[in-house]
Amino acid sequence: MKIELNSPLDMHLHLREAEMLKLVAPFSAQSFAGAVVMPNLISPVDSLQKIKDYRNAIMTACGKENFEPYMTLFFRSYKRTELAAAKEHIIGVKLYPAGITTQSEKGVKDFDSIQETLHIMEELQIPLLIHGESNGFVMEREREFLTVYQEIATNFPNLHIIMEHITTTAAIEFLEKYENVSATVTLHHLMLTLDDVVGDLLQPHLFCKPIAKTPADLQALRQAVLGGNRKIMFGSDSAPHPRHKKECVGCAAGVFSSPVALPLLVQIFEEEDCLDKLQAFISDNARERYGITPLEKRLTLTDTPWQVPQAYGDVRPFYAEKQLRWSIS
Amino acid sequence: MKIELNSPLDMHLHLREAEMLKLVAPFSAQSFAGAVVMPNLISPVDSLQKIKDYRNAIMTACGKENFEPYMTLFFRSYKRTELAAAKEHIIGVKLYPAGITTQSEKGVKDFDSIQETLHIMEELQIPLLIHGESNGFVMEREREFLTVYQEIATNFPNLHIIMEHITTTAAIEFLEKYENVSATVTLHHLMLTLDDVVGDLLQPHLFCKPIAKTPADLQALRQAVLGGNRKIMFGSDSAPHPRHKKECVGCAAGVFSSPVALPLLVQIFEEEDCLDKLQAFISDNARERYGITPLEKRLTLTDTPWQVPQAYGDVRPFYAEKQLRWSIS
Repeated sequence: MKIELNSPLDMHLHLREAEMLKLVAPFSAQSFAGAVVMPNLISPVDSLQKIKDYRNAIMTACGKENFEPYMTLFFRSYKRTELAAAKEHIIGVKLYPAGITTQSEKGVKDFDSIQETLHIMEELQIPLLIHGESNGFVMEREREFLTVYQEIATNFPNLHIIMEHITTTAAIEFLEKYENVSATVTLHHLMLTLDDVVGDLLQPHLFCKPIAKTPADLQALRQAVLGGNRKIMFGSDSAPHPRHKKECVGCAAGVFSSPVALPLLVQIFEEEDCLDKLQAFISDNARERYGITPLEKRLTLTDTPWQVPQAYGDVRPFYAEKQLRWSIS
Repeated sequence: MKIELNSPLDMHLHLREAEMLKLVAPFSAQSFAGAVVMPNLISPVDSLQKIKDYRNAIMTACGKENFEPYMTLFFRSYKRTELAAAKEHIIGVKLYPAGITTQSEKGVKDFDSIQETLHIMEELQIPLLIHGESNGFVMEREREFLTVYQEIATNFPNLHIIMEHITTTAAIEFLEKYENVSATVTLHHLMLTLDDVVGDLLQPHLFCKPIAKTPADLQALRQAVLGGNRKIMFGSDSAPHPRHKKECVGCAAGVFSSPVALPLLVQIFEEEDCLDKLQAFISDNARERYGITPLEKRLTLTDTPWQVPQAYGDVRPFYAEKQLRWSIS
C-alpha cells in the first residue's frame, strides 16, 4: 500500500545550530518540502543579518535536498524599517513569553509594551507566531494565556496570529472565535497525555513544553485534527536535545520527532480511517492560512515496517526502539 | 535557638534491602525513634519469617542507634493463623493496588477478593495501610480511589485504615468523615506541586508517586498539617533510588528525604509560626492513632546552617546542594 503526500510542511520546527543543526536538519529536509524554523537560538535570531546567516547554515546542513526553511524573527520591539526590510526573508515573528521554554529568556515580559510592533506587523502583513503559555500552574498555562490571545486577536483583526503547539480543549474552542487566528498541533500532542510523561516511570524524552495534558484534551485535539479543522496546521515542534541534557538532574523540554513524523501521522490517520484529511493537515491548510506556495515535492510512504533506532547521534528520538508500520520510500 | 522533639516517628518509610539498606537506614535511625517500614521489596515481605529476617537486617544496618522498625506485611490473602502469629511482630498490613508504584506488581488486582482478609484484620485489630491510587489519569488517581477507601471504612468500622501519603484537598476532606481513618503526609508533598516536577526543567529527583498535585492541593495539605489536624501523622515516604535509576530513559518514582526531614519540617513549621504543632505531627498523633509507645529518644535541632550534599553514596537526596537552616545536634 502507498500513501502520497504533496509537499508536506512542518509549520513549527527547532533546527538548533552548529553540530546539532547538521545532525537534525537532514531529517526534516528528507520528509518535508519546507518548515517554519524557530528563532530561539542561544543568541536569538532577531535581525535580518542573523536571519540570512541562519538560513545559509540551514541550507548547508540540508545538503542537496529540495527544502525551504521559512525563517522567523525572535520577537522584540522592532522599528518599521527593520520589519519592512526583513519581510521578504521571513514568514513571521515568533513571540515567547520570557522564560517559558528553552532559550526564551529574552522573550516578552510586559505585554503592554508590544503594541507598537504589533501595529507595524499588522500593517506589513507579517504573521505573529506565539508560544501561548502563562507563568501559572503548568496544567493551566495555555488556558490562562487565552486572554492574551483574545486581546491581540481583537485589537489587531488584520494580523494573522498562530497559536503554536496547542494542547487543550480550551484552545481548540478559542480557535473558532477569530478568523485571524490559526493553530499548529504537534505529533506528540496527538499521542500523549500527562500519564505518558509521569504516570508510570518518568519519561524525560516525552517531556515537552507545553506539557501533554489530560485524556479529554487529547480527545479534543484528535477530533479537531482528524476531523479536518482547516485552521489547524501540522507543526512538529521537533526539538532535539543531547541525551545528557535529557537524562540528568534538570531535564530540558523537547521531543525530537522529525525522523518519525510522517510515518506516525500516516499511522494515526489510517487507524482513525481519515487518511483523506491528512494532506490538508500536513500541507494545504498551511498554504491557505499563510498564503504560501511550497516547493514541489512528492513524498511516498509504503507500509514497510521498520524499527526506530535508539538514538540518532546523541539524540534519542520519539518512538525510539519501537516498530513503525510506515516508511518513507 | 533550639528545638526539642520527643521521639519523632516516621510513619511511612522505604528502607530497601542489601547495600541500599545499609546506606540509608542510619539516616532514619539518627533522626527518628522509630519508623513504619514498607514491605515492597523485590520479593515482597509477606510472611512472618520474612518480617523477622528483614527486621534483623534493618537492626544490623542501624548499628547502635536506639531505633524501632515498625514492620508491615505486604497485603495478600492471609489466613487467620498467619495474621494471628504475625500480629506481635507487625504494626499493620500494607496494601498496594497492583502496578501502582515501585515493586507493587504483586499488589491487589481485585478489591472484591480482599474482604475475608480485611475481616480477619479487623477482628485481630491489625491496621490497614493503603497506597490509595486508582489506575486512572495521574492527577485524579487519589480522588478516584476515595470510593475504595469509603467502602472499606464503611464495611469495616473497627478496622484502622491509614491513607498513606495523601496529596489532595479531596483526601483531606474525606479524612474527616470516618473516625477509623487516619492519614500520613510526606515532607515533599508539603513543599511541592506538579510545577516543581515538570513546570520548569524536568526534575526526576522530585518525581514520586503519588505525583505532587496543584497549588490548591498543596495549600489544603499545609493547612491541615500546620493547623494541627490530629488524624494526620508524618510519614516521609523517603524512597531512595540510585542515580542511574533516576537520571535515565524511564525514571523510578521516589524522593529520598530521610537526611533532611527533621531540619526541613522545623523550617516549615517555624516559617508558618506553628512550631507548637510539630510535636503532634511528628510523634504524638501516631501514638494516639496507632496506640503505640515509642522508644524514648530526644532530638535537638539548632539553627546552624548546613549544605545538603549532592549525594549520599549513589543517591541524590531531597534538597541536594541547598542550604538548610536547622541542624540535628
